[in-house]
Formats: sequence, structure tokens, C-alpha cells
Amino acid sequence: MKVCDRNWQQVEAYLKTDDRAILPLGSTEQHAQLSLSVDTILSEKISVDAAEPLGIPVFPAVPYGITPYFLSYPGTISLRQETYIRLVRDILDGLRHQGFRRILIVNGHGGNQPAGSLAIEWMADNPDTSVKFHNWWNAPLTLAKVQEIDPVASHASWMENFPWTRLADVVLPTQQKPMVDLAYMRALSPDKVKALLGDGNFGGYYQRSDEEMQAIWDVAVEETRALLEGGWA
Amino acid sequence: MKVCDRNWQQVEAYLKTDDRAILPLGSTEQHAQLSLSVDTILSEKISVDAAEPLGIPVFPAVPYGITPYFLSYPGTISLRQETYIRLVRDILDGLRHQGFRRILIVNGHGGNQPAGSLAIEWMADNPDTSVKFHNWWNAPLTLAKVQEIDPVASHASWMENFPWTRLADVVLPTQQKPMVDLAYMRALSPDKVKALLGDGNFGGYYQRSDEEMQAIWDVAVEETRALLEGGWA
Amino acid sequence: MKVCDRNWQQVEAYLKTDDRAILPLGSTEQHAQLSLSVDTILSEKISVDAAEPLGIPVFPAVPYGITPYFLSYPGTISLRQETYIRLVRDILDGLRHQGFRRILIVNGHGGNQPAGSLAIEWMADNPDTSVKFHNWWNAPLTLAKVQEIDPVASHASWMENFPWTRLADVVLPTQQKPMVDLAYMRALSPDKVKALLGDGNFGGYYQRSDEEMQAIWDVAVEETRALLEGGWA
Amino acid sequence: MKVCDRNWQQVEAYLKTDDRAILPLGSTEQHAQLSLSVDTILSEKISVDAAEPLGIPVFPAVPYGITPYFLSYPGTISLRQETYIRLVRDILDGLRHQGFRRILIVNGHGGNQPAGSLAIEWMADNPDTSVKFHNWWNAPLTLAKVQEIDPVASHASWMENFPWTRLADVVLPTQQKPMVDLAYMRALSPDKVKALLGDGNFGGYYQRSDEEMQAIWDVAVEETRALLEGGWA
Amino acid sequence: MKVCDRNWQQVEAYLKTDDRAILPLGSTEQHAQLSLSVDTILSEKISVDAAEPLGIPVFPAVPYGITPYFLSYPGTISLRQETYIRLVRDILDGLRHQGFRRILIVNGHGGNQPAGSLAIEWMADNPDTSVKFHNWWNAPLTLAKVQEIDPVASHASWMENFPWTRLADVVLPTQQKPMVDLAYMRALSPDKVKALLGDGNFGGYYQRSDEEMQAIWDVAVEETRALLEGGWA
Amino acid sequence: MKVCDRNWQQVEAYLKTDDRAILPLGSTEQHAQLSLSVDTILSEKISVDAAEPLGIPVFPAVPYGITPYFLSYPGTISLRQETYIRLVRDILDGLRHQGFRRILIVNGHGGNQPAGSLAIEWMADNPDTSVKFHNWWNAPLTLAKVQEIDPVASHASWMENFPWTRLADVVLPTQQKPMVDLAYMRALSPDKVKALLGDGNFGGYYQRSDEEMQAIWDVAVEETRALLEGGWA
Repeated sequence: MKVCDRNWQQVEAYLKTDDRAILPLGSTEQHAQLSLSVDTILSEKISVDAAEPLGIPVFPAVPYGITPYFLSYPGTISLRQETYIRLVRDILDGLRHQGFRRILIVNGHGGNQPAGSLAIEWMADNPDTSVKFHNWWNAPLTLAKVQEIDPVASHASWMENFPWTRLADVVLPTQQKPMVDLAYMRALSPDKVKALLGDGNFGGYYQRSDEEMQAIWDVAVEETRALLEGGWA
Repeated sequence: MKVCDRNWQQVEAYLKTDDRAILPLGSTEQHAQLSLSVDTILSEKISVDAAEPLGIPVFPAVPYGITPYFLSYPGTISLRQETYIRLVRDILDGLRHQGFRRILIVNGHGGNQPAGSLAIEWMADNPDTSVKFHNWWNAPLTLAKVQEIDPVASHASWMENFPWTRLADVVLPTQQKPMVDLAYMRALSPDKVKALLGDGNFGGYYQRSDEEMQAIWDVAVEETRALLEGGWA
Repeated sequence: MKVCDRNWQQVEAYLKTDDRAILPLGSTEQHAQLSLSVDTILSEKISVDAAEPLGIPVFPAVPYGITPYFLSYPGTISLRQETYIRLVRDILDGLRHQGFRRILIVNGHGGNQPAGSLAIEWMADNPDTSVKFHNWWNAPLTLAKVQEIDPVASHASWMENFPWTRLADVVLPTQQKPMVDLAYMRALSPDKVKALLGDGNFGGYYQRSDEEMQAIWDVAVEETRALLEGGWA
Repeated sequence: MKVCDRNWQQVEAYLKTDDRAILPLGSTEQHAQLSLSVDTILSEKISVDAAEPLGIPVFPAVPYGITPYFLSYPGTISLRQETYIRLVRDILDGLRHQGFRRILIVNGHGGNQPAGSLAIEWMADNPDTSVKFHNWWNAPLTLAKVQEIDPVASHASWMENFPWTRLADVVLPTQQKPMVDLAYMRALSPDKVKALLGDGNFGGYYQRSDEEMQAIWDVAVEETRALLEGGWA
Repeated sequence: MKVCDRNWQQVEAYLKTDDRAILPLGSTEQHAQLSLSVDTILSEKISVDAAEPLGIPVFPAVPYGITPYFLSYPGTISLRQETYIRLVRDILDGLRHQGFRRILIVNGHGGNQPAGSLAIEWMADNPDTSVKFHNWWNAPLTLAKVQEIDPVASHASWMENFPWTRLADVVLPTQQKPMVDLAYMRALSPDKVKALLGDGNFGGYYQRSDEEMQAIWDVAVEETRALLEGGWA
Repeated sequence: MKVCDRNWQQVEAYLKTDDRAILPLGSTEQHAQLSLSVDTILSEKISVDAAEPLGIPVFPAVPYGITPYFLSYPGTISLRQETYIRLVRDILDGLRHQGFRRILIVNGHGGNQPAGSLAIEWMADNPDTSVKFHNWWNAPLTLAKVQEIDPVASHASWMENFPWTRLADVVLPTQQKPMVDLAYMRALSPDKVKALLGDGNFGGYYQRSDEEMQAIWDVAVEETRALLEGGWA
């Protein structure tokens, strides 16, 4: 149930029987040859697919996140951390104002981690709520599936290349890119990051079969749905 | 050219020949029987349609805006003004960092007006830029076209009811709702606003013919495109 | 009843019988040949004149506002939007703390509009209050009176030239200045605004007769007083 | 030279020969039987009187300050410290933008002291400027004059009772109020402060002769003028 | 009772019988030939010594303060005023959350004065608390003792040279440095402050006898302890 | 080289030959039976031990961090995320102002992770710097050593029980506590966290031999020192 496909009367009716909601967090940033919106597309779609049989509303994905290291890649937008946590707090405040009490944040971008810290601070301010912060792509079962298929997988590599994130008319490299030194990269400013990373893939092949990707997706949908179904405070 | 359909290399290539970009601003808020995302859908689509022949990139629409008066309508999310202007400033900073210098903000929601003030403050901080803040729905030509068709038009009435904002399986009232007293409404807190407004339409019929709507849309696309083409600082 | 002419015991006595207050908002900015304080002088005086027969307290006018486009004109001071809305919020919080519940903000400067957005946000936080944000100079009746006298009227033109805003020993131009292109001006940074505007008048004659000005003033006082008397939440 | 009595062209002319400016800081708060605006009236008038022979522009006084301890006295408005220092910083930024480099802040209220700290922080950010923060009423010579006349003098006592701060038709107590325990008062919340202070005078007589007051004023004007004339960085 | 020498169960037990706590405020800044941490060392030690017989917990000293004038001295770190008051507010909020209601802030650095203003604002927000802001070194009895021994005493002079703040292997000047013009210094930016101050001592000898220092310390401990024992709201 | 054991002249001399500095980040929070300052003690001591042979200055540890989940444990203080990142930014700004360019942040508390995000944002603002954010206790080699000794190790268990963090006269449980469900805990507000966690240990024994602890410490010192010696941008 995407909120953009509903009106307020339908949400009002839902709130009489349930208090769960999903907020997907994305980012607009370089993903090598893939769409600049990979993180938004994936966090929103995993949310929608997981929520579908449960009828839980999925609010519009936040399309901008925290990604200062990629600032030198055209098309990348990074919010300041202070801006971002205010943004997520305001959205959580709004959800609570209307009666939502159990909120699953489905995060699609590692740099958005401060929103996870904010969620804990927010629960301390609002002790009648329960918020789960879920990095869908590195949750235990999903990550295990990825590594079972190919352990060399990373940002902008094959593991983010789904039929719904790849672009038409873009030719992908066929070789396996060696993993970049991530610890070293994290001590670099944006221009040096770009010089080190080149096309932006952190390491690994650029594409694998659609069957493998679907298998990962199925695990991720299942794992995300389980978080909606149980384990709330 | 939607940025979500492009990768960073394509944006980099664009920036060698042009420095214009579009940022649509939406809102997630009650629109009577229509989608909660009306303002996001319309600001993004008008941007895409206007930019199409020019090849100017349209960044992801900001799906949350400033709408405190509607907070008592389920599904409505309102950002605090401080949050919102920081958010828009960070996006403008990011655009400028990568070489964009002429930016058209296509706003779909009246409550987002503080972003227009921010744009002027931001130009004072960045005098090498030019930003236009465009309320697409009440720009002179578009507004004239709306009023030519039916002068009783407002938030959540027929004038926002396009084939791309109405919901399947939702029955619309057929009578013409009298205009609410807007000046009075603006002095009310959210619960009182809801009590006054009822379904959320400010006044007017709930639907008119698709031909009339297309005629308005054509004017609005044209008027928006003209802002992209000329009159920059 | 100007607050500066009262002590706390007198305000305490007033609050036992009434809960209305007025907050005038001004600006320190270029007004062509007129005083740099035109907006403060006018918003305060209209408040005092409107409140006089009702005995409603008029708090000190805020003498600085949001005016980044005029920053290149000496003597102009612009507060950042974040600063300004915090300032107005703190004042509203203080008024409410002491028992005021119906507050008329009499605004004298268009750039201060974000305070109007803040007022709505503040009512959502304080639902037992009612705040009206009143742009005295373009309220319906006042604006109609201005246009009846001379439709070419704007910032720093004759329409702001009252006996209490013009300066001694300053000679005013006698021709009618053509209206500047306001939409174009709003996409310019401060130096370019100054280059475009010259002396700062947006368009129109520089002075009209005192009788005409008094007629406008009388309408504006009446229209402002009506807002004090009725239409509260 | 009050800025409200000048236009931008006159300030522009001034800046070709000088770079000094004065910013008075006031407060709207209880002053026992005296005007709620005592601190604003005095800081502005001392500025104007000191600047008069030098032709230095006096910007509009900031009429609201930091005064949380008096919040339970009707008519008192207190800005939060964060708001206040942002406000003063924005004004200083504006002054510097236009060419002012030597700024005298004439403060009329002890609670505004954080603006003095801000001034030092601001000079570190703007090393080409020099800012003096002047508490006019307890500067060495002025304080000595007060104590010479009557050592029991304090907030809202005779020492703030000038012909330009006392109210018509208000009868003043004639006895000498014993000094309140200030250290104890500073550990109290607003309701307890009001319970302790009663009418708001901290201690001392309520009025002394106009001759004595003029003598104090003359010293204060002289002392303030000396700060304008010399000792800049 | 230093909190770093306790576990949470011990603090919990304490809170069943008492609600007082101490928060020392320090600074990391030039102190001429003395330790860069003089203000932290002294505010923490005076707190611990004063609290010792009373069993009141001393929370970890805040080691960074507001000291922009010293920014050009290597090793000096200055927090912005906004940061600092947020920091102190969060700590006060935390103390109150756990049941502390009477809090003595023992400040070791004059530049931290905005935290004193914040304490008063915080009490207005939390009227069930009482906070004392204590500048231990210039409290009446301690200051009198210092001046009895040697009236030429200041920042980084002998009056801050205790056995626990002086460094091994550092040779101290033996002459008495003339007092710097403090009013003049406060109108200077950091580089000019350093040029004026030289080694950083504001004036006075660099060292006096340990007996004299111990005598001052004894008075200061006594005076601080008295604030813990009585005079709360 | 602890900065508290140095004066500004010594730091100035150091900066002529090197530009590295260390900033330890701690926390004041429940650690079961151990000191409330475990994270501060360990991050500071690991910094000092690692830096010792290299002569790199260790600035005072920040003793308060982000720990909202533990707010119901007496003695725990949690800074808001916005406060914390401003605090760390100000310290980084100060270090850079004086010439430091390579900064190792040695973090002792997982909740402080937003400071790692801030460090990357700060490098984007200051591209001439390199900052490493080092969680000393779960860096690869140190974590491997811990798990080699006993894989059941966590917050407040034996792995944080060093001779320098345990308290005299506190008896420790001797059994192995089962690991708490951390994912579940992260969706709980503070009171529920305390109800779930009991004494605060997340899981594992409470103490192991001093030899084992020294072996871990030796690895951690070595691993931290290696970060100081190489791998800078």
C-alpha cells in the first residue's frame, strides 16, 4: 500500500486497525554505471514488496541522504547530517501525531546511519513508540545470500544491479573490479575519493544473472517482512 | 531527463554544455479524495514535461513539505520550516558544487513558500547563481486558464484532479462545494481546520473533463518551459 | 496602548479581561529616498492607531526582517530566515506564557512572509491559540484604495511616502518611474538587484498628496481594527 | 544620526569617510513601576546622545533580549540564548557586508551578556573588524557616579528612573527597598523569582531628583562617546 | 565522589537520599607556561575537594569551553557559543531525567559565562530545579583572599599556578608582568590578542609560594562547599 | 604526549615538525558493575599508549557521548546527536585552525558513530585534511584477539573489564550471562531497555584474567599506533 496511491480517508481507516508504517530512505548519488537513484529505488521497492500482503502503508521514500564522500561525482547530492536527522525526526513526529506507533525504517544507503541513531534518540523522547532501523541489503539473511552467490560484492557492483536499477543503453564492464581499500577511502576528501574509485564501483563484477538477483530479492523481501510481522517492543 | 534515469557520467557530460537544473518540490498531505501525493506528482510531472525537449535534468522531487494546518488529516506529514529550508539549501549547495548555476525550483504546494525566501537568501550567499522559484499552478498564464474554465477552483478541487492524481475506485462528490473562508482558516489550529474543511477540498467541483484538464496542463508546461528558456540573471 | 508606555502591573490588569495582543514586524532596508525604517514605522503606527480605541497592547516592533535582495544597499540589514522564525517563535512563546491567546501580527514587509508560515506551525504546537498574520499594505480593502488612487504603486514609491516616513531636506524625483520586472529581479543576487533597481523604487511616482495618503491610512486602520475585533478561532 | 532618520544614500555617503556604527541592545521586561521598555529606551538614547557630535549612525535598538528570570511578569518577553546570538550575529554580518568595521554595541540589559561573548567569537571569524561590547550603566565612570549619589541602586530602582523612562500617572513608593539576595535569586525559576522580588525592584529608592539623574546621564554619555572616539583595534 | 569512580548502581542508591550533583566546566586553552588544561584541572579538583565530605557526585568535567580570543595560541580549542549551551543543556537534561534537582555548576573559565545564562533559561523550562553557576575563582571570599596576598593577579599568572597545574621542566619568568589593558584586548581578533599578550599571562607574577596557594585553595574549597550545603531554591 | 601535560609553546614547537593529533571520544554511561566512565578511560588510555613513542599530542577526551538507550540508568548522560556533531566539528575546526591536518579520532563508544559521519562531512568542507575514525575495540585485529579468547564478549562484559576500569570493593557475578537480543533491544525505549538488560552487561562473563586483558590491550595499542604511522590521505 503505497501512500501515494491512497487518500487520507483510507489511511484514517487503516489506523483504526493497525499502527505500523514503513519509511524508506534513499539517496541520490553515483552508482557507477547504474541509476543515480539506486538506493531510493531499492529501499522503496523492497518496502512495497514486503508490505504488500500485510497492507501496511509505505510512505514516500526520502530521495536524498548523507553521502559527502561522493560529492565530486556529478548528480550526487548530500544533505548535512544535522539536516538529515531533523528531516527524519519531523517525519517520525508526523507519523506519531496521527497514531502510528510501530515504524520500520527501510534504509537503502549506508551513509544514512545517523538516522538509526536518531531513531533511538526519538524513542527516548517518545517511549510509547517502537522504531526498527533496517539496512535491508546487509541484514543477516540477505547478506548471507549475496555472499553465497559471490563474496566480492559492494556499492555499485552487481549486487545493486537489478532489472529495476540498470539503465537502458549503458554498456557495463565485464571484468571483476578488485575491491578498493575502504578504510583508506574513508580518510579521503571527495576529489581524492573520486580519483581512487574511478567509475564508483567499490569492487566486484558489474552484473550477474537475473535469476541470481531475483533469489537475493526474494530473501530480502522475506527478511524485511518478518521485521514487520514480529519482534516489536 | 529524470536524474533517476541517468548515471553520473551522463550528468557529467551534460554539465560540459549546460548549467541548468530543475528541482521539484512536493508535499505529502490531504487532497480530499485525491492522492496524498498530488503536489509531488504534479510538480514532478510538470518539470519532466517542460524539460523534455530541452534535455535539462530533473532531480528527484522532495516529497515532504510544510503543511502544519493539515496535520490532523491522517497521512499528512509536515516538516518544520527550519528543517525544510536547510533541506533545500543543502540540495542547492550540492547542485552548485557540481557546476549547476541556473536552477528552476518547480513548487507544487503553497505552504512551501519559505523555500522561495531561502532561494533569495541563498543567491545572496552565492552571487554567481540564479534561482527561479516557480509556483507552477498559480503562475499568470496557468491561473488565467484555470479561471477561464471555472473560477471556483482551489486546493483538492477539480483543478488538482488530473488522470495522474485521481485514485481508482474512489467515488467523487458531484456537487460544487462552496469556498471556505481562507483567511479565517489560516488562524485555526489543525483540529479546527479539519472541523471546518471536512473532506479537505477548499471549494469548487471535484472533477471536470479530461479535455479541460489537458488544456490547463498544456498551458502550464509551456509556461514552465519558458522559464527554463529565458530570463535568467 | 504601546507596551513601552506601560508597566507590568498594567499588563497584568489587562490580561484579567482580555487576551489579545499585537506584534508589529518591520525591517531596516532601502526605501529609495525615504527612511530606512519605513516598514517598522508603518507597521507600528498602523498597529497603534488600530488598537487605540480597543486598548489592546502593541508590543515593540521587530525592527529587523528578511531582506537579502537589498543587502547591497547601505543601511540594509537582513536576518537569516532561520534566525527570524526563531525570533518570532520566542516572542509568541512569551506572549502565550503570560496568557495572551489571540495575537495579531501586523507585518510591514513582504520579505517577512516566513513568519506567517511560522505562525501556522506555532498554532499546531499551541492549539489553544489563534494567530492572524496581516500584511497591512496589501490587505484587500487597503490595496483596493491604493489602486483606486494610482495603480502604479510599489515598494518605496509614493504608496510608502507618508508624512511620517519621508525625510526632511530630501528632494524627491517628480517623474513616474516605470515598474521594474519583479519576476526577473527575484532571480538576481544583491549586486545585480541594485544595478537593476537604481534608487530602489520598484515603480511609480515618488509622492502624492497628503490627503490621498490619509485616505489610504484611514482604510488601513479600519481594516486592521476589524481583524482585532472579530474572526478569531 | 539615527538610521531611521536617514536613507540609504546618506549611509552610503557616510561609509566613504568612516566605518563606525552603533547597535543598541534593549529588552522588554518588568522594571517595577517603570516602563517595560526601560532597557531599550536607555540604550538607544545613550547611543544617540553619545554619537550626536560625531555623526556616527545608530541602528535601531533590538527591543527584545534574554530575560528568562522575569518570565512570570506580564509584558516580559525573553528570547532564547541561541536565538539572540544568531540575531546579533546576523546584524553584525550585515553591518560588515556594507563596510562597517568598528562597531560599538551599547547594551542596556545585563541578561544580554551572551551577545558580548558572541562579539568575540564573531571577531575571530572576521578578523578585520573590531567590536566593543559596552554595558553603559555599569561602565567604570558611570557606576562610580551612581554609587557616589546612592550606593543602594539596582534594576528598576531610582537609577533607571529618568524623565524618559517613568510613566505618567504612576505613583511610586517612597521608601528605600532593601536589596534582594541576588545570588539566591539566580538559583530560582521564574515564579519563585516573582514571589521573592514582588514589584521587581532589586533594592533602593524608587526615585531621586532629576538633577542627580542628569548628572549620571552626562557621565554616561561622555564615557560612551570616549569609546567611539578611541581605543579601537 | 567522582562519577568515574562509581557505577550506576551506586548513583542509583545515592539518588534515593539526595538530589544534588556537581558539574565542573573547564577549557583547553593557553595558560602561558602552565598546562593547557588549567581550567579543567582546577574546576574538577575544587569540585571533588568541596564535595568529598558530603558524598555528592562530581560528574566528568567538560574539558572544552568558549575561548575564541585565544584561538591563535596552539593547543587552544574553542567551542562556538551555540554548541556550548546545547552541550550544557543536554547534560542538565540528563541529570534531571535521573532525579537530580539541585545542581552546582563549578566553572573554571570566564569565557564559559553563557552557560550561566543557559542555566537560568533552563530553570525557566524546568521550574522544579535549582541550578547555581559558580565561578569558583572570583567568588567573593576566594577573590578577597587572592587580593589580600597580591592584588596583581590574573589569567595565567601566579593565581592559577598550583602544584597541580604547573608543568615539570618548565622555567617560569621571575618578574612581575604589568597588567594588560583588558578592555582594549576584548576588542581584538585572535592574532592581535596574541600579539598584545605575548606569553599569555594577563599580568602579575608567575609563581608564589605553595603555602599561599594552599591558603587560597582552602578558602575556595570552603566557599564552594557552602554553596552545596545551603541556599537552594 | 597528553595535551593537559603541555603548554601552548610546546604544542607550537610540535606543529613545526608534524601535523598529527589524536582526539579520544568517550561516554558517561552504565557499564554494569564497572565505572560509568569506561569508554572515556579506555579511549584516552589507548590513545596515550599508542601515541607515546611517536610524540603525537592527545587532546582531552570528550567525556560525554550519544547513549539515549541507557538514559534510565542513573549516572548516564546522553548528548543529542545534533549537539554531539557540532561539538566534534568545533574541535576539528580548532585543530585545523592551528595547523593540524591529520587527525585520528579514537572512539570508545559505539553510539558515537555519528561523529564518524561528521568526520567525512568535515573533510568535504576541508579537503586539505585527513581524518580517521577508529573504533579501537572492534578494529579487525583487536576484535579477532577478543574472539580468540572468548567469543561471548560485549558491552560491559569482561572485555571492558581492565584493571583501570574496574572499581574497588565491587563484587562481580561469576556466571556467564547469555547474550541479549541486540536487534530487539534497539527497538526499545530506555525504560524497556533497562527492564530487558538488568545490570547492563549485554552478555558474557564479567571478568577474565589480567594476562588475557593485557594481551588484548597490546594488540589494540599496536593496531591504533599503525593508524597513526601510515595510510593517511
